[in-house]
Amino acid sequence: MNAPRKAVVLLSGGLDSSTTLAIAREQGFELWAISFDYGQKHRFELDAARRLAQAFDVKKHVIVKIDLGAFGGSALTSDIEVPKDRSTDQMEAAIPITYVPARNTVFLSTALGWAETLDCSDLFIGVNAVDYSGYPDCRPEFVEAFTRLANLATKTGVEGTADWKVHAPLIDLTKAEIVRKGTALGVDYAMTHTCYDPNEAGLACGHCDACQLRLQGFEQAGLSDPAAYQ
Amino acid sequence: MNAPRKAVVLLSGGLDSSTTLAIAREQGFELWAISFDYGQKHRFELDAARRLAQAFDVKKHVIVKIDLGAFGGSALTSDIEVPKDRSTDQMEAAIPITYVPARNTVFLSTALGWAETLDCSDLFIGVNAVDYSGYPDCRPEFVEAFTRLANLATKTGVEGTADWKVHAPLIDLTKAEIVRKGTALGVDYAMTHTCYDPNEAGLACGHCDACQLRLQGFEQAGLSDPAAYQ
Repeated sequence: MNAPRKAVVLLSGGLDSSTTLAIAREQGFELWAISFDYGQKHRFELDAARRLAQAFDVKKHVIVKIDLGAFGGSALTSDIEVPKDRSTDQMEAAIPITYVPARNTVFLSTALGWAETLDCSDLFIGVNAVDYSGYPDCRPEFVEAFTRLANLATKTGVEGTADWKVHAPLIDLTKAEIVRKGTALGVDYAMTHTCYDPNEAGLACGHCDACQLRLQGFEQAGLSDPAAYQ
Repeated sequence: MNAPRKAVVLLSGGLDSSTTLAIAREQGFELWAISFDYGQKHRFELDAARRLAQAFDVKKHVIVKIDLGAFGGSALTSDIEVPKDRSTDQMEAAIPITYVPARNTVFLSTALGWAETLDCSDLFIGVNAVDYSGYPDCRPEFVEAFTRLANLATKTGVEGTADWKVHAPLIDLTKAEIVRKGTALGVDYAMTHTCYDPNEAGLACGHCDACQLRLQGFEQAGLSDPAAYQ
């Protein structure tokens, strides 16, 4: 019997990445998870990532510290206020202030390095067409360009012994479809953390873009969100 | 008068990156420098980077901490011994154990994020055709693929307001040509640190691949290396 193929899954601790983890498991991959402590204000998501990694019995979960906050420029890592109660039109109008410059590029690159040491050539990332709401590094073209880079940037790519795959199984799904998919796969969404601006107890605000998209997703899926709100 | 164009320069503190810094200055760029504290054993290079940043009067020098050593897999970040006194044939035969998985991808991605917050779209990296000696992420194809990714991964790339350029001015130069170029531009190579395996006082070993390539470069350029060796 062959050993199962390994996958490195980017696990933020949110709804999308936990669903992605469940999809990787469903596809028969052995799970390795990576999270980032990058100076985000919503650090409760790292606790969520730890809970999820344990619930999914991943082989190893690493949390890599990298101080992207040193650069500023995003409401997620600096003193800029997280916008609340924006309409869908507002969310879609421009790249939001919650965009962290080059975040997914840094995360995928680091995951690539780890995967290379594991003899693994499958990465999973939970980007999707609704959630990006203007984030450049959540689009299919970005994922495709990163895959091309991976095949040039690595030992295994150069030697032709690996064929990097960057799986983005949510990319074409609406938030409602993601919630239905994850529910069918047994994801306990009570464990996940989505809010960009939780209170001190870690309770979600219900009003930032991330909370609004999440709540709409559950509503449209005809399900109720088990997460705790303020 | 227009403000000078900004450039973010990857500054390891070695011979190549200091020469690259001098070239960016010669080209009229305003200098911003980024270094990485990534768990390398040869941390003396960070002191060198600090000295060089000061000598070149850069606008800002950031040192980003990211623990790539957590993954292992390289002689530069783990207990694996740094190879010594290898022949040129040995150096060129295969990707060496000093290769840090996806290092340049992670570094360039992080530099990209910082540059984006600075309204800068010029990155400089000192990769070159001799020094890579088998490192996949030092080849022209890699630099080209990263540029393509940058234009898809960023706000400015997407909005069409920036056209990312990844300058690799040393890519076609031999080590001797680099030394001559830097000397002509006034680089004080006594300030630089190249060795992968310095002693406790920070003195270079003279026998690792990096030291050997450096010493050969000075010799072939008909110059003497002002750095201190054990």
